[in-house]
Order: sequence, then C-alpha cells, then structure tokens
Amino acid sequence: MGQLSETILALEKGALSRWGEGDPGGFLETSAADLSYFDPFQEKRLDGIEELTALYESIRGKIKILRSEIVNPRVQIAGDAAVLTYQFISEGSEGFKRWNSTEVYQREGDQWKIIHSHWSFAPHSAV
Amino acid sequence: MGQLSETILALEKGALSRWGEGDPGGFLETSAADLSYFDPFQEKRLDGIEELTALYESIRGKIKILRSEIVNPRVQIAGDAAVLTYQFISEGSEGFKRWNSTEVYQREGDQWKIIHSHWSFAPHSAV
Repeated sequence: MGQLSETILALEKGALSRWGEGDPGGFLETSAADLSYFDPFQEKRLDGIEELTALYESIRGKIKILRSEIVNPRVQIAGDAAVLTYQFISEGSEGFKRWNSTEVYQREGDQWKIIHSHWSFAPHSAV
Repeated sequence: MGQLSETILALEKGALSRWGEGDPGGFLETSAADLSYFDPFQEKRLDGIEELTALYESIRGKIKILRSEIVNPRVQIAGDAAVLTYQFISEGSEGFKRWNSTEVYQREGDQWKIIHSHWSFAPHSAV
C-alpha cells in the first residue's frame, strides 16, 4: 500500500476508533461540508454535514464496539479523490455486524475529507 | 445539474436500461479494468473487471425490469472523479426492490469509467 493509501486508511482507523467509544466526532471532523451519506437505516441519502451531524449527535455515547476488524482494505487513487473500500466486522452494543463500507475522500488543501460514505450490511455468510 | 453531471447520469441511465433487459453489457463496457464492487449478495468485494464479468455473465438474460425510477440523483465532481449517488426503485423479475447506489466514475481520456460500485438495499419504508 502506498503512502497516500496508508494516510487515508489511518484517517479512517482513527475515526472508527472514536466511533467504537461512542464518539462520532472523528467522522464528523473528517467529513466535508457537502458530503453525501447512505447507511441501511436511513430512508434517504443524507446531504451535507448538518444532516450527518444531526444523525450522529443523536447516537453519541450509545455505541460501544468491543471487537472490530477491518477486512481487506483497498484504496483507489483518482487524482484528488481516493476511494477507500473495506469490510468491517464489529461486535458490541449493536450485536455482531458485518458491513460493506465505501468512503470517498477528497483532498482539501493539505487535508483529506470524506465527501461520500456508503455503509451497508454484508451477507450473513460474509467475512 | 451541470453538463458533466448530465453526462455521468446519462451513462448510468444507458447502462441501467440495458440491465433491465437482461443485458449487463452496458455496465461492463462502462467499467474500468481495476474496479471495485459491492452488492448485497456478494460475500466479498469484487476486484477487477474479470470478477465482475464472471458475476454479470452468470445472470445475463435472467433479469427483467418492468418499471424503475432513479430517485434524487446527485453528482459530486472531484477533479477527474465523479461520485454519482441515487436511490433506485425497480419492479420486475426480482420483485419490488429499493436500492441505494453509489457509482464512482473516473475520467479515462475522453471517456468516464466506473471505478467503484456499491449497491445495497434501502430500508423497506424508503422511496
């Protein structure tokens, strides 16, 4: 994995680590103002940091991940965008879950911000 | 929607139209060689056009969409990448389905190719 890919993955791991302690701030701070967001519980796509903040603040402190694993991460670089994909296994307050995750990062000056997230459930037999 | 966004959406509509007639060729021709791909039936991410071709050729001729709708499409441009997101309602051989769809396109010369697809089920109450 190249250096940029490692940087992107480290950003994600940092946000996930805080997420697992009930703190959505890592993802919020890493998100771009005009992001788009899908997860399997939202009826519609969320657009913009205000909508994501409202969702994430509503569950602050409620999630506790005891064990997790990032499976087979891949980063595809496309100029000033980077597509991070992985599967994520988590065990904790929400039970045992297997996720497919897409995070599209875009360079903003010397930082990389998430402009799109897509979280979905992987099949039960997966990972 | 700007001209580039319209171009991206037109590519997707063309591929979807053929898909609904059982022809995966539109998506295969619009996909980049090193794509990544999630859908809710695959245990793992598919990587590369060979893996996607094997999947799609296995269902060639088996899908018939009678009615469909692209809901709330959005294109985010990030240099030579474009993130198309929408919800998709389809009714046909697979029953009534509601999808969340992410398609990351990247410019290749004068063409745009899909470098990442993520299909998942939207909640039953959605769209």
